[in-house]
This record gives sequence, structure tokens and C-alpha cells, in this order.
Amino acid sequence: MFLSHSDIENLNHIYKINLINSCSGYKSANLIGTKSSDGIENLAVFSSVTHMGSSPALLGFFLRPTTVIRNTYNNIKATKYYTINPIHNSILEQAHHTSAKYDASISEFEVTGLEAEYKNKFYAPFVANSPIQLAMEFVEEYNIKANDTILLVGKIIGLYLDDQLIEEDGFINLSKAEIAAINGLDGYAVPENKTRFGYQRPKQLIQTS
Amino acid sequence: MFLSHSDIENLNHIYKINLINSCSGYKSANLIGTKSSDGIENLAVFSSVTHMGSSPALLGFFLRPTTVIRNTYNNIKATKYYTINPIHNSILEQAHHTSAKYDASISEFEVTGLEAEYKNKFYAPFVANSPIQLAMEFVEEYNIKANDTILLVGKIIGLYLDDQLIEEDGFINLSKAEIAAINGLDGYAVPENKTRFGYQRPKQLIQTS
Repeated sequence: MFLSHSDIENLNHIYKINLINSCSGYKSANLIGTKSSDGIENLAVFSSVTHMGSSPALLGFFLRPTTVIRNTYNNIKATKYYTINPIHNSILEQAHHTSAKYDASISEFEVTGLEAEYKNKFYAPFVANSPIQLAMEFVEEYNIKANDTILLVGKIIGLYLDDQLIEEDGFINLSKAEIAAINGLDGYAVPENKTRFGYQRPKQLIQTS
Repeated sequence: MFLSHSDIENLNHIYKINLINSCSGYKSANLIGTKSSDGIENLAVFSSVTHMGSSPALLGFFLRPTTVIRNTYNNIKATKYYTINPIHNSILEQAHHTSAKYDASISEFEVTGLEAEYKNKFYAPFVANSPIQLAMEFVEEYNIKANDTILLVGKIIGLYLDDQLIEEDGFINLSKAEIAAINGLDGYAVPENKTRFGYQRPKQLIQTS
């Protein structure tokens, strides 16, 4: 099957969003937790959280300021703090349900039954029992001209981790953690096996003169 | 285990890059193919390719202009075109080896034995036999102040897909395609199962008064 640029543009809306959301491979599966300045908690699933660098430890994600995701954006801009919680196998259905469009006055924690957890006096709620929990601080944002979205950049200022998941060299074993990956808009997979190849150095190339 | 911001900053370099690269969950696994203006092919593995929007169909990825990845960046800036090829189970080792730092005069296709494929007169090489192949056109770039990286934004102008992978509603079944996901810097997993939950609508909330 081959689709040109205009073929893609002319696809039916649902077909197009399913196709384009799944064509670049698996996406990260995260719940972002925030709290408004008047104390209303918000929780939303995001598939665009991306590693940007380790020193400083920065993660970015994309959002459309005009959709349901606006609650997350407004809360982060108002309070500067949020949490990122990679999604565990046991809460896939509840996690995905946070994509439903609830009014800002309603907490997705309450609706889904996922439990909010507060620790170390951090302002935003973590998802209780998540094997990995990241406390994030807003750093900067970029307005993406090409499609009027926003890249929001944040710094990891706290990291909570189940001790059993970390290997000697700092690698977190995500399959042992039963963390999900997202396929398209609504598909979730929990990888069971992994291979590590290590740091790669150039092969000695044979001179054939 | 809890690590504060300063704990993270003070970690040993290798431990830190392993930890921070794996703490936000699985990452997409893609090979980006380019060709310099004087005809030298380049192929490099990226774990930061991210969906930015479907109309227009935009994907972004992050790169450091000062590393090996510079070949990819320079070629895209000079020629405007590149390919994105989600990584199949059968080529994990070769794909990962493209992360070794080869000189710009050396083609990673040659070094790894992966085959370059040209079609529809597109300038940049695809990875032959990839179940999904995307022809990309450069759109714009953003300099990320927080860590001196670049977000490179491109538009999907052609999409090749194995017909068996696509479902009625446009969803590409990545587990059927045996596409990998990346864990950290050097871990690869190929998810075998997936669940789809569909589009979510708010639940009827019960009035309790």
C-alpha cells in the first residue's frame, strides 16, 4: 500500500488519525498529574512524553491548547509543577479513560478510581502504586507554528522508583516493571522481553586497497 | 528509592544516562535514512521520533548538533528529505549498531549490511523490507534553549505499508508488524499483545444529592 501526501490529506478523519498515530511505532504511555491553583486534581494520559536530555534531565510533551488537554496545560502554567507516571499493566483501562473529555471541575482520579498520592510536599498528585513516579518542574514552552501545538519542556526534580527495577548501571527494566507502550490512539501493549546490546563502537573496516 | 534533583545531577555519567533514558517509559524505535548532497548515504537509530499531529501529518525528533547525529541533521538541512523506518524484530542488532560513531564518509548501510531501497524517485534511502516506510520532508526546526538540542519537524509526504498490517479503521497493528520499542539507551522489546479500548466518552456521573 502506498499513500502520497494528498492521499493522506484526503483520508476520512478517523482513518487518518488512527493511521498517522500508529505509523511511527510505539509511543510512551504516561499519566500526567496536575492540580489547579484552587485545588482541583487532574489526570490525563499522554503518548508524546519524550526524552530530551539527561544533563539536565529534561522531558518534553506535545499538547493542543484547544482540547481537553487544556486542563493539564493551564494547571502547569499556573502552578509550575506536574507529575509523570509511566502506566502499569494493571491500570490500562482506567488510564485510557482519562482521555474522555471531562470538565475542569471534575477530577479524573475520582472518575477512574485511580488514587492520588502526595509526598515530600510536592504540589502535584502522583498516581499511587506506580512503579516509577517523576516530579516535574516547568522549564519552557515552544509554540509549534506548523500545526499550532505546544511543546512543553520540564525538568525531573524528583524520581521515585521501585528498587527491584533498577540494574547496576542505572537501567530501569521496563518489562519487569510491566510498563505499557501505546500503539496508535487506543492500543496498549506490555512488552515481556527485552534485549540489551550495549554501547556501540565502530567496527574495524577492512582495507581492501 | 528516591532521587532528588541534586541526587540526579550528581550521579555517575553512565548511571545517569541509563536512568534518565529509561524513566519515562518505552520510546519509539526508528531508523532515519538520509543522503548527503554528494551522494553518501547515512542511517541512524533514533528513539525520539514523536507524533505531533495528523492534519498535517507531522513527526518531530530531537538531536544534538554536536554528536554523530550531525550527519543526519546536515543531510536533512542540505537536501530537505529523509526517511523514517520503524525497526523490525529481525534487524535489531544492525539497527542498534548505527549508533556507533562513524565518519560522515562511511555509510551505515554498508557497515551493517542493511539494504538501502529507493522508490518513486524519492531522494533519501528507505530501509529495504521495513513493514512501514515513511517519506519525510523537512518543515521547520526549533532550538531548545534548555539543553542546546534541536527539535526537527517534518511532514509525512509518502507512506508505504504492508497491507496485512492495517485494520479497517486505519489502525496499524504494530505487534503483528513485529515493530520494536526502545527501553533506555540500548534495550529493545518487541511487544506481542495489544488491547484496544476505543474512543472514550465521559461516564454519566451519579448525582448524590
